[in-house]
This record gives sequence, C-alpha cells and structure tokens, in this order.
Amino acid sequence: MQLVLGVDGGGTKTRAVLVDARGNLLGSCDGGPSNLQNVGEDGVRRVLRAVIEGTVRKAGTKIEAVGAIAMGAGGLDTDHDRRAYDRILDDLLPAGVQRVLVNDAIIALYSGTRGAPGVVIVAGTGSIVAGHDARGNEVRVGGWGYLGGDEGSAFDIGRSGLAAALQAEDGRGEFTLMGDLLCRRYGVDSVRNLLPMIHSYSTPQRLIASLALVVDEAAVQGDRLARSILKRAAGELIRAASTGLGRLGLTGADARVVLVGGVFCSDLVRSAVMEGMRERVPGVQVVVPEVEPVAGAVMIALRQLGRVLDDEVYRNLTLWASSPMNPVDKEEEVRTAGSRQAPSHRDGIVGHHTLG
Amino acid sequence: MQLVLGVDGGGTKTRAVLVDARGNLLGSCDGGPSNLQNVGEDGVRRVLRAVIEGTVRKAGTKIEAVGAIAMGAGGLDTDHDRRAYDRILDDLLPAGVQRVLVNDAIIALYSGTRGAPGVVIVAGTGSIVAGHDARGNEVRVGGWGYLGGDEGSAFDIGRSGLAAALQAEDGRGEFTLMGDLLCRRYGVDSVRNLLPMIHSYSTPQRLIASLALVVDEAAVQGDRLARSILKRAAGELIRAASTGLGRLGLTGADARVVLVGGVFCSDLVRSAVMEGMRERVPGVQVVVPEVEPVAGAVMIALRQLGRVLDDEVYRNLTLWASSPMNPVDKEEEVRTAGSRQAPSHRDGIVGHHTLG
Repeated sequence: MQLVLGVDGGGTKTRAVLVDARGNLLGSCDGGPSNLQNVGEDGVRRVLRAVIEGTVRKAGTKIEAVGAIAMGAGGLDTDHDRRAYDRILDDLLPAGVQRVLVNDAIIALYSGTRGAPGVVIVAGTGSIVAGHDARGNEVRVGGWGYLGGDEGSAFDIGRSGLAAALQAEDGRGEFTLMGDLLCRRYGVDSVRNLLPMIHSYSTPQRLIASLALVVDEAAVQGDRLARSILKRAAGELIRAASTGLGRLGLTGADARVVLVGGVFCSDLVRSAVMEGMRERVPGVQVVVPEVEPVAGAVMIALRQLGRVLDDEVYRNLTLWASSPMNPVDKEEEVRTAGSRQAPSHRDGIVGHHTLG
Repeated sequence: MQLVLGVDGGGTKTRAVLVDARGNLLGSCDGGPSNLQNVGEDGVRRVLRAVIEGTVRKAGTKIEAVGAIAMGAGGLDTDHDRRAYDRILDDLLPAGVQRVLVNDAIIALYSGTRGAPGVVIVAGTGSIVAGHDARGNEVRVGGWGYLGGDEGSAFDIGRSGLAAALQAEDGRGEFTLMGDLLCRRYGVDSVRNLLPMIHSYSTPQRLIASLALVVDEAAVQGDRLARSILKRAAGELIRAASTGLGRLGLTGADARVVLVGGVFCSDLVRSAVMEGMRERVPGVQVVVPEVEPVAGAVMIALRQLGRVLDDEVYRNLTLWASSPMNPVDKEEEVRTAGSRQAPSHRDGIVGHHTLG
C-alpha cells in the first residue's frame, strides 16, 4: 500500500506528515520556514530535507514507500518559484513519486472543502483568497503582501490600531483604549516608544501583526475605534471572498467559504465575516475547518493516488490533525497571545499563514 | 567676523553650507545619508566629517573661523539620538563652536518662518508636523514612520495607489487609470508583477513613495480613485497641522504654516492643503519657502550668534538657496520624476525629507 506525504511549508515553520491510504498518521516532523522569499532556495532545500527525512524515519519506513506528495508552499506565486521547488523536490524524492505543488492557501482550502468547489479566506499575518470551481478553474484575490495590500490581515489590523493609538497620543485622533493596552503589554510609557522596538525587528511586519491582539482586546472592551478597525477588516475579507466566488461563477448553492488563520480567532471578525458572506451570497456555507492545513495537503496527495476521501478517511485525519488548526507563530512577539481565550481557536489572532 | 555652518542631514543625503554673518555663501558640500537609524553612528561620523571638512576647504578657510553650527538631523527623535550626534560633533568641531541640533523638520520650519511662530508640514517620503510658539514651546505631530503612520506622505499616497490598482486588477475594486500608468512606467504587464521588484529593494518604502507620482498623474487625468487618495492625504496633513497649531495655542493672526516636501509638488495636494488650512484656521498664512531647508539651519546658527535676520541677510540666502527647495531623492527609482512639470517644484513629488 502506498503512503502519502503532506507538507505545509510556511514563512515561519514547515510541517510534514506521512499517512497511509486510510489517513492514519505514521509520522510527522516540524522544521523552520520554507518560504522561498524568506530563506532562498538553499534554505528551503535544507528544511525540506530535514522534515521529509525526519518524517519517514519516525514512521520507520523508507522514502520508496511514498507514492505521492502534496506540498502547500508559502510564497509560491510564479513559474519561477515553481521551478525552484521542483528542483528541490527532484533532489529529495525518488523519480516515481507523484507530486502536487500549490500555494499554501490551496491546502488550507482543501482542509475545509475536501476538494469541493469554493474559496478559502486565509487571514493571518497576511491575507489572501484562493479557490476553484468544479472543473478546476482557479482564482486568487489579494495576497499581495504588507506593502501592496493584505487587506483584512493581522498586519492591516495591527497597523491601523497602532496608527489610531499614535494619533490619539499626539492629539490628532479620538481617545482609544488601544493606547493604554499597548503600553501595558509592551512595558512602555507612551505608544511612540514602541516604534524603536518595532523598527529594530528584522521583520517588523510580524510584530505589527501581533498588535492585532490588542485591537481585538480593546474591541471586546467596547472601544469604538478598535471595533471599527475590525469591522473594516471583516468587510475587506468579505469583499475579497465575494469577488473570488463571483469570478468563478459560484453561487451559494454550489460553494463553500473556508475561514483559516489567526484573525478569525477574533469573535468579532469571525461572526462579521460569516454574517456578511451569508448576506452577500445567500445560501453559501461558511466553514471553519476541523483539521489543520497540512491535512489538506494529505487530502490532495490521496486524491492524486485516486483515493476517495470518504468519511472514514476524513475521520482518521481529524484524529491527528484536529482543531485548533491555526497554530500560532512561534516567534517571541506572538507568545503574548496566551492571555486570550477562544474555545476552538485558542492559539491567538496571528496564525502561521504568512501568505504575502 | 565669525562664520556659521548649516547642515541638513537627511536619510538620503546631507548638505553642509558655510556662510558669513550677512548670509553670503562661502562654500558648500554634499554627502550621503546622515540619518542615525539608517547608517549608524560611525556612518554619520564619516559623512559629517566629509561634508564639514569639504565645505571649510572649499571656502578656503579653517574650522577655527566657525562660530556656530546648526544641524537638522533626520531621525533625531530621542535623547539617545541626541547624545550620539553630540559625541560625533565633539569629535569634529573645536570646543568653542556654538551648536544647535534639531530634528530636520525644524530647519524646514525656519526656512519658511525665519523663526516666527508656526508649524511646518513636511510631506516627503514620510510626513511630520513640527513647530513652536513665540516662547519656544515645541510641538510635534505624526512622523512615526511608514509602519506607524506617516499619513499624507508620499509613502501613504503611493501605497494607497498601489493597493487600488491591485484591487482593480483582481476584480475587487473599481477601474483606475493608475494600473495602466504603473505598468507603463515600470515596464510590467500587470500591477502584481511590480511586487517582486518592490520587495527586492532594501528600502521598499522608498520605491512605494515614488509611486505617488503615478497617483498624481492619474488624478490630473481625472481618475476618481487617485483624486480621492490625494484628497484624503491632504486631509491628513491639514488635520496634523491644525492639531499642532491647537496644541501651541496659535491662531491665524499669529501663526504661519510652512509647506515643505515633494508631496506639495502635487498641485491638487498643495491647493487642497492651502485652502483647508485657511478654512480651519482663519487668517493663517500658508507659506511655501523661497529657500531650501539648509538655509533654515543657517538662520538658526546666525540667531545663535545674535545676528538679526534682516531682509538683506534673507535676500543673500535666497541668492544661493533659492527654490525649488525640495531636491529630489537621488535614488534610481525616483528619477522617474523627470517627466513631470511643476514650475516652482520641478523635482518631483518625493522630496528628500524622509522623516520617520
């Protein structure tokens, strides 16, 4: 019986899993980032080698037992990127292994649709909408990075919150609880004193994204500005998803909308997006996946081998890849997420999707 | 007769000038960036040594002839920054030289007020409002960098234009001329193909700021979205300046508002800010300086020596430091400014002020 490898390769970490044809977990391994834009081709090769070999070793098997691999890669945007990943996988895998290589939004989509038509809204540090119809026509909306858009992302929310707090502090804007909350959380006496810290980070956009937690906290406490920032973010995500469905010609009867990423840990954003999508696309089914994104990669690999994703397979996947399916960034700044509680999304507002 | 040194030290270039007590130019020298945040203390020391020694040499005099120096430093925000600049100037200047060290927004202010009460709106790559009243009480609004605000800056305008063009391209937003203009200017076939170029820059925020030119071009051609982006930017600058005046307790009768920076090369922004300021603060005098910012540093140094800035001195300053007073960034991406024409601001929308 042939085994399948699923890989979720993001900008912060990479997870590989090996399952049998029924979706039973045989082994898994985590590693560092495997986003081409962040770590370059050699960096990706090193990480993928480590997690794939580690997974196979833990499963007590050999790479020759693998029949298919599906990988969702963060930052896989162009043919140039695809060729780089192909070169890497050529080095790491025997010739006969079937291979599916997609943007990591697509494995997140599968984690909620099992391959049925629809779109996924990934809202983590960055944001993107991706999807396909029943014939395989694909769509992508947004996901252009923190400098070009990422509307509705944790970066977008955090930046808006920071700007509002600075504006309140220097007298331009109305009072907001976010100022005090930011100062307390980061141990500074004024919001402006956060800026040297932010600029000293090699990836300041991640730290900014983590500020989204404070925006949500203030919103929960009733802060008007914080609530309007989250509502605007939800509106942007709704607009992107509606655009994606429209471009695919999908209606509510034949489409799912999958919500993935730490931003949906915010009750306000999640409920606003659910409500807004149902209003804009009557009858649409909005889904929060029960499995983590790497299980989406496994599903793609199983289908590649001609397996049917029946309920038993899906149940097996949920056993090892159960929700919360939005593992938090491991970086220091995001540990602050610990204080929040959200039963099915306990890992904080910043997910590990850093699409963009 | 004692001479004075004026230095305008920005994030892109540094200009030093040496004048006599009547404001006659004796020598000047340009060098690279002297922004502490960009090049570090050793980098600043190297650049300042080169431009100060170069200026004195060109003037055919000795450093001992200098009675005072005033320097506007980009990124001078904290006591920590001030001590670093002080250490550097201790090394470069004889003990007796009087010294005034200010944020570079302050020399831009002086270039338009000659020391009278008021605020300056600097809107270049970044944006900031700074000013003082007749008793020397100071105010600062904004200028928190591209991650924390810089509302109304070229970065803000360029980012909004880029986002609007991307949204139009993937079907989320309304049509805008900015898409075509961006593609033509940068030789790409879709706006999304600009992103790898942007992210490959070590300072992508500068490239984004240069996109403000395209927003202005589209607005001139009547593009609705571009016009609304520029109007919003003008509104932010008006809000910041009004806040600054309010915090100083200045009214229209006793205050000036000085406009400095490449963003004001946009006729639409400049006229909207002038009109908006006069509406918000009746009787206020809005000034576009006739001299470049480094002349503001010279004025500060002359006052430090007790000289009166009479009309003759001011006339002498305009002889060598005449408008256009917003020299363009020298970096490649900003050269594209060449195609625009604006009689008194011919150097493009991105000025050399990169406050933030």
